[in-house]
Amino acid sequence: MGRSLAAAFLKAGHPTTVWNRSPAKAAPLVAAGAHLAPSVAAAVAASPLTVVCVTDYEAVRELLGGDGVVLDGTTLVNLTSGDSAEARETARWAGRRGARYLDGAVMAVPPVIGTAEAVILHSGPEADFAAHRTTLEALGTVTHLGADHGLASLYDVAGLAMMWSVLNAWLQGTAMLRTAGVDAVTYAPFARQIAAGVAEWLPGYAEQIDSGSYPAEVSALETDARAMTHLIEESEALGVNAELPRLFKAMADRAIAAGHGKEQYPVLIEEFSRPDPA
Amino acid sequence: MGRSLAAAFLKAGHPTTVWNRSPAKAAPLVAAGAHLAPSVAAAVAASPLTVVCVTDYEAVRELLGGDGVVLDGTTLVNLTSGDSAEARETARWAGRRGARYLDGAVMAVPPVIGTAEAVILHSGPEADFAAHRTTLEALGTVTHLGADHGLASLYDVAGLAMMWSVLNAWLQGTAMLRTAGVDAVTYAPFARQIAAGVAEWLPGYAEQIDSGSYPAEVSALETDARAMTHLIEESEALGVNAELPRLFKAMADRAIAAGHGKEQYPVLIEEFSRPDPA
Ligand SMILES: NC(=O)c1ccc[n+]([C@@H]2O[C@H](COP(=O)([O-])OP(=O)(O)OC[C@H]3O[C@@H](n4cnc5c(N)ncnc54)[C@H](OP(=O)(O)O)[C@@H]3O)[C@@H](O)[C@H]2O)c1
Ligand SMILES: NC(=O)c1ccc[n+]([C@@H]2O[C@H](COP(=O)([O-])OP(=O)(O)OC[C@H]3O[C@@H](n4cnc5c(N)ncnc54)[C@H](OP(=O)(O)O)[C@@H]3O)[C@@H](O)[C@H]2O)c1
Repeated sequence: MGRSLAAAFLKAGHPTTVWNRSPAKAAPLVAAGAHLAPSVAAAVAASPLTVVCVTDYEAVRELLGGDGVVLDGTTLVNLTSGDSAEARETARWAGRRGARYLDGAVMAVPPVIGTAEAVILHSGPEADFAAHRTTLEALGTVTHLGADHGLASLYDVAGLAMMWSVLNAWLQGTAMLRTAGVDAVTYAPFARQIAAGVAEWLPGYAEQIDSGSYPAEVSALETDARAMTHLIEESEALGVNAELPRLFKAMADRAIAAGHGKEQYPVLIEEFSRPDPA
Repeated sequence: MGRSLAAAFLKAGHPTTVWNRSPAKAAPLVAAGAHLAPSVAAAVAASPLTVVCVTDYEAVRELLGGDGVVLDGTTLVNLTSGDSAEARETARWAGRRGARYLDGAVMAVPPVIGTAEAVILHSGPEADFAAHRTTLEALGTVTHLGADHGLASLYDVAGLAMMWSVLNAWLQGTAMLRTAGVDAVTYAPFARQIAAGVAEWLPGYAEQIDSGSYPAEVSALETDARAMTHLIEESEALGVNAELPRLFKAMADRAIAAGHGKEQYPVLIEEFSRPDPA
């Protein structure tokens, strides 16, 4: 990932200094015009903006906390994956060393870095993002989410949860339809249409959550729960996996037991906002 | 639902005969121009096309199997919800009585019936659908899925699985972001964009399933599994529910244990196509 990020800066015409623990890996970047720094300290000193992307946050602090590394006055953009607590902690750590700090999350694979397809989320002080926005735009579609340094990683994992959910629901449907001889390619456009259609409801449903009021304008949770039973029974009858439908039903049933059966689906936010039942 | 269906036929200008066990409920339809049949037999005899929508398949067979009801030569469109086995069984039952039979599933709530928003799925002989397509189009956006009578209900529950999955993933993300003070309305557009974006991958991923070959062109399942661990840990750290991420991880781990860690996500179809582990 680090290589793709540096390559994108070079391609956009930015003077770029690179450093890697294993310097040989930088050779193609040097051939493409990058300066190879002899040390982390020299790499950080070379530019007003330092982008770091290594295995984890421990590695970030190990390499940037080393001898002679002066962070005072630099802006650090950390694109390493981690959780929100690590992001906030690292922001404080960097702040104590005098650095401006933006956390970031790369929602893309290395081959698309440098194209609009590469979604890169940033969080931290708005002014620091604004100061480097045009430079960061060389990497992909960049977004600033807010001042809280934890936001980039929270949006990142939330987005992944959506990704796996859409994929799993599609696999559930595909498994069911294949028992009737329907190819995955035949079923996929239907699944795509439903996913995209339901996605359109989210902003409206979100208003119910923010207002804490869930009138069953479209349908009541207990109607959903009955249909979930059909999905479970159909899955079982076909011999396909029913764990996902069973979990849907278990969560809906808990909300119904708590008295929410006549309210609308988003009332389940109360179940999602609680730790797992014992 | 029956009332909305009849109202849509009337609105489209089709001569419409109605029957309901509790005749008083038909009054608004009669006021709107419907003929009220004195019996099921008379209702079926009144038109070449009979649309039925009652509680369940048992009720369908009870009411249409009654004395004097002649199904021979009629086309029956059954929009009652049920499973694929019931649909196929009812098709045979209707066939023995000389009826042409189409099964159907209404993916809509009564208020939208008669608008393009009402998606209605049909399955059964293509010629029977073609013969009544223009009439059925009065009800909404109608689709013929194939000759197998079980298809409408299979697509229906598969679509519902997608609906609950998108909603649950959005609730998971909303619950996480709310711990950082982010409103549901602020987060929703991001969730919408991810769901719609991932939906676009499905046709391509479906080709992997149909070919039974899952090269990790974008990313390997073991990379997904590591990120799932982050999602679980982040959910736990925030005190939000982690059952959904835990199920994702359990299914991925089983596929990895079966040797598929270096393959791409759709290889999980093998887990989805198997009954739940004991
Ligand atoms: N690849 C993706 O598709 C992708 C997508 C989104 C986000 N990410 C995130 O991007 C980050 C990097 O991922 P990657 O795919 O580039 O991983 P990778 O190929 O394993 O590279 C890890 C890099 O970190 C360096 N490193 C690790 N520990 C170090 C230490 N203590 N001191 C100095 N350097 C150290 C490694 O140096 P050596 O070269 O010397 O080993 C290497 O350059 C991760 O947080 C990952 O989650 C990756
Ligand atoms: N409502 C929705 O949002 C929706 C959405 C999609 C699919 N559906 C499906 O549409 C079907 C009907 O749903 P609904 O909402 O209209 O339910 P409903 O309001 O409970 O109506 C059920 C109807 O079935 C009749 N009925 C039940 N048993 C009967 C029997 N043995 N003989 C004759 N008539 C009988 C009832 O007659 P009485 O009036 O005399 O009681 C009533 O007209 C269900 O399969 C449902 O799953 C509904």
